Amino acid sequence: SALISSRHVYYQKQPCKELVLYLHDVIFNGTNIANATSARVTNPTKLGDYFFGMMVVFDDPMTRDTNLLSPPVARAQGLYFYDMKSTTNAWFAYSLVFNSSEYKGTLNIMGADMMDEPRRDLSVVGGTGDFFMARGIATFETIAAQGKYFCVKMDLKLYECP
Amino acid sequence: SALISSRHVYYQKQPCKELVLYLHDVIFNGTNIANATSARVTNPTKLGDYFFGMMVVFDDPMTRDTNLLSPPVARAQGLYFYDMKSTTNAWFAYSLVFNSSEYKGTLNIMGADMMDEPRRDLSVVGGTGDFFMARGIATFETIAAQGKYFCVKMDLKLYECP
Amino acid sequence: SALISSRHVYYQKQPCKELVLYLHDVIFNGTNIANATSARVTNPTKLGDYFFGMMVVFDDPMTRDTNLLSPPVARAQGLYFYDMKSTTNAWFAYSLVFNSSEYKGTLNIMGADMMDEPRRDLSVVGGTGDFFMARGIATFETIAAQGKYFCVKMDLKLYECP
Repeated sequence: SALISSRHVYYQKQPCKELVLYLHDVIFNGTNIANATSARVTNPTKLGDYFFGMMVVFDDPMTRDTNLLSPPVARAQGLYFYDMKSTTNAWFAYSLVFNSSEYKGTLNIMGADMMDEPRRDLSVVGGTGDFFMARGIATFETIAAQGKYFCVKMDLKLYECP
Repeated sequence: SALISSRHVYYQKQPCKELVLYLHDVIFNGTNIANATSARVTNPTKLGDYFFGMMVVFDDPMTRDTNLLSPPVARAQGLYFYDMKSTTNAWFAYSLVFNSSEYKGTLNIMGADMMDEPRRDLSVVGGTGDFFMARGIATFETIAAQGKYFCVKMDLKLYECP
Repeated sequence: SALISSRHVYYQKQPCKELVLYLHDVIFNGTNIANATSARVTNPTKLGDYFFGMMVVFDDPMTRDTNLLSPPVARAQGLYFYDMKSTTNAWFAYSLVFNSSEYKGTLNIMGADMMDEPRRDLSVVGGTGDFFMARGIATFETIAAQGKYFCVKMDLKLYECP
């Protein structure tokens, strides 16, 4: 136990753990049941031309490289939705679910995905199992976006580790 | 203030606070307004046979035992949605709202609910009031699931406490 | 590194950082595209008379005073939904996105908005950029609510600061 007023914690930018994974999202188009990993659950509104309000639920494979067909090392399960009327911009909340010989547990992540920026930081707000009580930053970088498929590099840097 | 690079915090598995509560969820079927505690806000998609994309908003009573009719000691307010095409699996984000003589305040929780597992860990990512700045783990265990009703045991273990 | 069982952290109520900002939300009515900052993405259910289940996606300006027309210093991007059948009550999850000369980065926030209370506390669960790894409390206070417009004062107190 410690009695403190509040914490100014001057972290150096050296994480105690780093994982780089690639998310692959294939949106359901009504017929691609075998390949689809996500589906639209609300329609875009008419507020602008950038899908404002369209929400997607996903269960996406995470791989160690950019190849969609590489063996998944985790699943990303959650939602995103588009939320700007003037550009393509999204908001994510999801869990990374690990169930491999290397890791068992989850990381819980939320934040804004400002797709106009080359890199965007979201917050790792908690973890379980092998990631018990973890916190950190998830940096998104779009690798591919073509039609019903996109791939995002997620650089996961943990600054509080079990 | 402290100058550190990042934190490896070797918590023992002894929480500073533990609460065991039971959530009771009765889904609205169009007529059970008096009893219903939750309602579907999006339809399931046709991606698989496990309600992929169906989202439910809830305001569920939390009791100290498994009896739905026991006096509530908190409310669980938030959402869950189904997110797998091959099995029944959900994702939760919600607040536990306490307003009793014992506790006033909230705990904020998010994470994956992998219902095929007997126990699943979600993250307690923050708290307010009597749970000011709390963090921890919420372990789910399904007690009952029959038709429009389910009951989940939530074992709340806090590892950062006020 | 430190070996501890769990943390009882007796914060004094003195934040290491405080920001007071005002959120302005103008709901899309089908025609006010220029002014609208949010849009309904699901319909209210018939569970009670308080919009249970109605979800809104928003990209709202945040200003330093109560004037909707003041220059925004941040955007609030996320969702809220109504979740009680007996009163008007909501749940929020969103990011504050700063991109000014003063601050660059985000704060990620979630929690219950019990509108019957004059002040309600939500959790700041993470931050990025100038708010790297921040945690704290966001206190809501309704300033105005008239038709399609509302204004909420957000008193952001950080107790873990970079």
